[in-house]
Amino acid sequence: VDTIFNPRYKMGRPEKGMISFISQSGATLCIIMDWMAHKCYRGAKFISYGNALNTDEADLIEYLVSDPDTGVICVYMEGIKNGRKFFEIAKANSRKIPIIALKGGVSDAAVNAVSTHTGSLAGAPEIYRAMFRQAGVIEASDLEQVFDFARVLSTQPMPRGKRIQIITNGGGFGVLMTDCIAKSGMELAGLNDEYYGELKKLISDHVVIRNPLDLTGDSSAEMYIEAIKGAMADPDVDMVAVILLLQLPTLAADIVEMVSEQNKTKKKPMIIISAGGEYTEVLKKSMEDYGIPCFSYPERAAMAMKALYDYSNFRGAKK
Amino acid sequence: VDTIFNPRYKMGRPEKGMISFISQSGATLCIIMDWMAHKCYRGAKFISYGNALNTDEADLIEYLVSDPDTGVICVYMEGIKNGRKFFEIAKANSRKIPIIALKGGVSDAAVNAVSTHTGSLAGAPEIYRAMFRQAGVIEASDLEQVFDFARVLSTQPMPRGKRIQIITNGGGFGVLMTDCIAKSGMELAGLNDEYYGELKKLISDHVVIRNPLDLTGDSSAEMYIEAIKGAMADPDVDMVAVILLLQLPTLAADIVEMVSEQNKTKKKPMIIISAGGEYTEVLKKSMEDYGIPCFSYPERAAMAMKALYDYSNFRGAKK
Repeated sequence: VDTIFNPRYKMGRPEKGMISFISQSGATLCIIMDWMAHKCYRGAKFISYGNALNTDEADLIEYLVSDPDTGVICVYMEGIKNGRKFFEIAKANSRKIPIIALKGGVSDAAVNAVSTHTGSLAGAPEIYRAMFRQAGVIEASDLEQVFDFARVLSTQPMPRGKRIQIITNGGGFGVLMTDCIAKSGMELAGLNDEYYGELKKLISDHVVIRNPLDLTGDSSAEMYIEAIKGAMADPDVDMVAVILLLQLPTLAADIVEMVSEQNKTKKKPMIIISAGGEYTEVLKKSMEDYGIPCFSYPERAAMAMKALYDYSNFRGAKK
Repeated sequence: VDTIFNPRYKMGRPEKGMISFISQSGATLCIIMDWMAHKCYRGAKFISYGNALNTDEADLIEYLVSDPDTGVICVYMEGIKNGRKFFEIAKANSRKIPIIALKGGVSDAAVNAVSTHTGSLAGAPEIYRAMFRQAGVIEASDLEQVFDFARVLSTQPMPRGKRIQIITNGGGFGVLMTDCIAKSGMELAGLNDEYYGELKKLISDHVVIRNPLDLTGDSSAEMYIEAIKGAMADPDVDMVAVILLLQLPTLAADIVEMVSEQNKTKKKPMIIISAGGEYTEVLKKSMEDYGIPCFSYPERAAMAMKALYDYSNFRGAKK
C-alpha cells in the first residue's frame, strides 16, 4: 500500500505480447501502458509521435508491419499529415496485419481542441470513415474498444462464419448476451445435438442442450470443458462465448487452467465473459495472461466477435 | 492472496448508500453486489424475485419508493407480469425518484432463452421502449450503464442546462471527451473568462482559458481546484467534467480530498474521468466513496451526463 500511495506514480508496464500502439498523444499512451499492465494485456511496441515533425503515422505503421513482435497495430490519431500516403500504406498492409484506429476530433466541437493540442487538421469524420473502410482499417469508437478488438484479433483464430454458441452458468447473462449478439448482427448457432455426448453424461436432467447452453447453478468445471469441446467439434458452431460467473460455489480456480487448455487448441475463436469483484478480477487477469480475451459484460464481447468476423471476411475477400 | 484463491468465493457486499436493485435473475444480482463492492459503489436494498410467483416488479418498486434509504431504483427484468400496473406505478413515482431499467430479451433470438429462464413473455422491444418513455423510466442499454446512470443520479444535483466544461491535464482525453459530448447531444460550454481569475494567477502563459481547459502536464492540484471553482461560479457552465490523469508526476494523492471538497458544494453536477493502473484504481475508489462518480473513458461519462440532463428536464416538465 505504501508504494501505491507514493505521490510519484508507480506506473505499470505491460508484459511482452503482440499488441503495438502508435499514439499522437503522449499522456494517452502513458495511460494505455499503465492500464494494459493492470489488466494483464500484453504489448509489443509503444510509440508516441506528437506533432509529427519529421515522421508520421504512415511511416510508423510501415515500421510495425515489418516488426516480428507486432501482431496487431493500434493507432490513436488526431489528424493525418499525408492522406494519400497513409491510405496506400494502410491498404497495402491491412490484410497482413490488423490495423485498428481511433480517430480523435470527429466532431465540429473538437476541431479547435485538436488544433491547439497537436496542431493537426481534424478533417471531416465522413471522409476518415470512408478512407478507413477502403483501406481495410478497423475503426474503434472508443479507447476501450481498441483493446477489445486488439485482444481478440491478436489471440484468436479466424472464424468460418458468424454463428456463436453461448455457454453460461447464469440465465440472465445468457439472455443479455443473446440480445447483444442479435444487436451486433451476429447469429446464435443452431447447435448440433450429437456433438455433446460427453456433456450429456455429466449434466442433470433439467439442463437442455440448446443455445444459450445454460449449465445452471450446479455447473462444474468438467461440464464447462465438455460443453466447450462439444462446441469446438460441432460444425454448426463458428465461435464460442463462455460466460463464467465465478460467484457460484461449484466453480474453483482450477477452471482457469482447464479453459486455457481448450483455448490452446485454436480450433475456433473463444472469449470469456466474467463479472464481479476482486476474486473474479484476479482469475480474469490470469486467463488474459494465457491469451484468452476476457470481458466483463456482454455488449463489448459481442462487438469484438463481430470485429473478428468482419476482419476474417475482409482478409478472405478478393482484393 | 490466500483468501482470494479460496475456492469458496469471497463475495463482496457494497457499503451503505442510495442505489437499490431489483433483479429477476439471482446470479445477476450476486454479480452486481460483488462488483459494486469492488468498485466502492454504495447500495441500499437488493431484491431478487425470479419467476415472481406471489409478487412482481411493480410491487417491489412501490416498496422501494417508500424506503427512506433508497435514492435510485434499478431494475433488471425479462418480462412484466402486469403491464398496466407496472406502467401506473412507474408513472406515479418516476418524478419522485429515478427508475432505471435494463430489459433482457429485446431480440427475437432471446425470446426462447427468456422463456426457459424465468418463464416470462419477453414481448416486443418497441412496446417496452415506448412504455418506459411514457412512464418516465430511464432505459439503460447494458448492465454497466445502469450503474453509470445510477451513480450520477444518486449523487449529483440537477443541472440547469446541457453546457459542459471540460477540465483536463491530457490533450488527447480532452479531444475524445469533446467528441463524446457532441455525439451524446450535449454541448461544450462557452466559458466566461472573468470567473477564472484565481486560476490565471497560477497557470503558465501557455495555458489558455478555454474549453476543453487543458492544464497540461504541469498541472497541480491547486490549478485543478481553481479551475473547478471557476466553472462552478461561471454562469455559462452547467456541468463539470474533470479529466484527471494521475500518471502525471505533478499530481499527488491529496487531489482526491481536494476534489471531494468541491463536489460537496453540490452547486453543479461534476464527474471524474481517470484511467490507468492500480494506483489510479485505488484513488478512483476513494473518490467514488466520497460520492463522486468516476469513469475510465469519456464515452460512458458523456452518456451518464446526458441521462442526468434528460432526467432533470423530465422532472421539471409539466405532468
